[in-house]
Amino acid sequence: MQQLRPSTIREILKVTAQPEVISFAGGLPAPELFPVEAVSRAAQAVLADGGSNALQYSESEGYGPLREWIATEMARRGVRASAQDVLVTTGSQQVLDLAGKAFLDPGDVVLTENPTYLAAIQAFQAMEARFVPVPTDAIGLVPEEIPALIAQHRPKFLYTIPNFQNPTGVTLPADRREKLARIAAEHGLTILEDDPYGQLRYRGSDVPPVKHWDTAGRVLYASTFSKIIAPGLRTGWVVAPHEVFLKLLMLKQASDLHTSSFDQRVAHVYLTSGDPMAHVAKIRAAYGERFGVMDAALREEMPKGFSWTHPEGGMFLWITGPKELDALALLEKAVQRKVAFVPGRDFFPGDAGRNYLRLNFSNSTPERIREGVHRLAALCRER
Amino acid sequence: MQQLRPSTIREILKVTAQPEVISFAGGLPAPELFPVEAVSRAAQAVLADGGSNALQYSESEGYGPLREWIATEMARRGVRASAQDVLVTTGSQQVLDLAGKAFLDPGDVVLTENPTYLAAIQAFQAMEARFVPVPTDAIGLVPEEIPALIAQHRPKFLYTIPNFQNPTGVTLPADRREKLARIAAEHGLTILEDDPYGQLRYRGSDVPPVKHWDTAGRVLYASTFSKIIAPGLRTGWVVAPHEVFLKLLMLKQASDLHTSSFDQRVAHVYLTSGDPMAHVAKIRAAYGERFGVMDAALREEMPKGFSWTHPEGGMFLWITGPKELDALALLEKAVQRKVAFVPGRDFFPGDAGRNYLRLNFSNSTPERIREGVHRLAALCRER
Repeated sequence: MQQLRPSTIREILKVTAQPEVISFAGGLPAPELFPVEAVSRAAQAVLADGGSNALQYSESEGYGPLREWIATEMARRGVRASAQDVLVTTGSQQVLDLAGKAFLDPGDVVLTENPTYLAAIQAFQAMEARFVPVPTDAIGLVPEEIPALIAQHRPKFLYTIPNFQNPTGVTLPADRREKLARIAAEHGLTILEDDPYGQLRYRGSDVPPVKHWDTAGRVLYASTFSKIIAPGLRTGWVVAPHEVFLKLLMLKQASDLHTSSFDQRVAHVYLTSGDPMAHVAKIRAAYGERFGVMDAALREEMPKGFSWTHPEGGMFLWITGPKELDALALLEKAVQRKVAFVPGRDFFPGDAGRNYLRLNFSNSTPERIREGVHRLAALCRER
Repeated sequence: MQQLRPSTIREILKVTAQPEVISFAGGLPAPELFPVEAVSRAAQAVLADGGSNALQYSESEGYGPLREWIATEMARRGVRASAQDVLVTTGSQQVLDLAGKAFLDPGDVVLTENPTYLAAIQAFQAMEARFVPVPTDAIGLVPEEIPALIAQHRPKFLYTIPNFQNPTGVTLPADRREKLARIAAEHGLTILEDDPYGQLRYRGSDVPPVKHWDTAGRVLYASTFSKIIAPGLRTGWVVAPHEVFLKLLMLKQASDLHTSSFDQRVAHVYLTSGDPMAHVAKIRAAYGERFGVMDAALREEMPKGFSWTHPEGGMFLWITGPKELDALALLEKAVQRKVAFVPGRDFFPGDAGRNYLRLNFSNSTPERIREGVHRLAALCRER
């Protein structure tokens, strides 16, 4: 195993656990919006009715009725899949781990957005992968650049977060998704499409997943209940072409046998009682409001030289500061002023500037967002 | 990734799901002994009191109070450890995965008992490890054989299940454990001690873990709540020397971020309310009775040429048949007679005979054990 970089994010999360710190650092959903009572009712129902099954070992593939629910949900998202194509995982993070194990040997190349999700870098680094960033503009990956990268680097797969990307918040337009799928088919490229945030759209219209255009069976689609129910349940899934599915299944079994039988059944009862989508609409509305408040506060208070993305959903926006900005030094001062964010450097698998900040807006109330931006902007003006 | 062998056990489990099949195949605890009501009360308590924390992302290390409980439990088992040494994992299976990632590169050697736990073979095979079996007699690993194997193969670690081993049911005596720890210290050998069954002793006296004698910090100790609460919660742990702990922690984070916040808190409330150890005593008594019934039925009905182990705890016994026996062929006939077991072949990482059977006695009632042995023994007599 190679040296892994420690996760700056999680170290900061610990420092900022005190309530007086306004943290835009973590990637946490709003806990006050968790459907605690409905989950509690679901847990009681699961343990009242066939309770011992919910506590027993179960199939590595996942709980059958939950896989059925996911297959139906996939159709709603524009992807034809049967329950047999669905592997339930311990959060969608585990999909990254399993895909890394299935596809990567030491030295193998993964194509990624630039910047990309920190814990994906870590998962693939555990397999001693190398990263080749795909040129990325204001609306995401540039598909036309990919064939040359394939020829040069023979990547094992491309990792992408097309919706409300982490860390930038950017959404890849439909025409680029279709092109990605076509390039994958033509060049035999595997794509790992990670979609944790897609249901959190508060503006604009849904764009079908890359997997929607995947006629050649080259796309693995990963998603999670972390943002539409709660992350503590660690329940996600992957839809994969059959041969890849079988490999992932064997690796899943060796990794943790199966995902919590209890959590899977709680999720299933929750999803099939009441109106879970109405709850998601509530989350969406709250996050939309919070983004709006953060954006307005930034416009009002940030000095010249700073710009930021305007995501149509998700939990993050991405600030680009003046070239000479050292975001890590800024963070050190910010923590003293009781406000935190994540410096952007660690999200770049290759070399990159130090002048980026990732701000999370889902985990703070509008009042705290205003106050936090106020503290942060004051620091930026002092520079 | 190398070709993995599919798990015969899990494929058989699917075939034997019909209730008319008496299955000695799986490795399942007795579901009628799961503390369903107490777990249900714990789930309600967890969600009533600070419920949103139980559904939020949490630290990769594990839930603090649960780590404290485990540290205290480790002392009871004869191992000095602080909560900081405890990493909570998604079942103890995940410890095998993390240790494999931390220590193994393709081609590296793991020393194992012969036979050993099937899913450990799979976890280390995912890292493309090679297996070197340590000579094993009727009471387990022979420590004296290990120094020569270290010199010859430079193994990355030794994997062992000292209590009621899977698949044989054998328990390694204290003097051999002490020797193992001494050899590890003298030769710089890492030991991964897997102890899922240690609390299931129904005869004889507890033997301290190898970790008890680990003055040199060479032993990783893994255990689980699967057998003392319920496996569906997928909650286990590892106690590791600090440097190894940090590596495992980083790999844990990349694998699934953390183990279910909900399940960890449910386990903790369950363990700290009522008398969980009294419940374990009930499980122990039931398994002891079931072993006794199986042993008596085997003695009464099995033909000459078959012998079996007499475990003092755990869930399995191990039958050695006549040299010419083909246990896989026997299984095919047995399934037609509505009784199932696991052929022993797959538990041997190297070459071995085909004349072994693993029988599980924890998951069947005494009546079904008698009837199942009756069916199986009839087949064995017909050979």
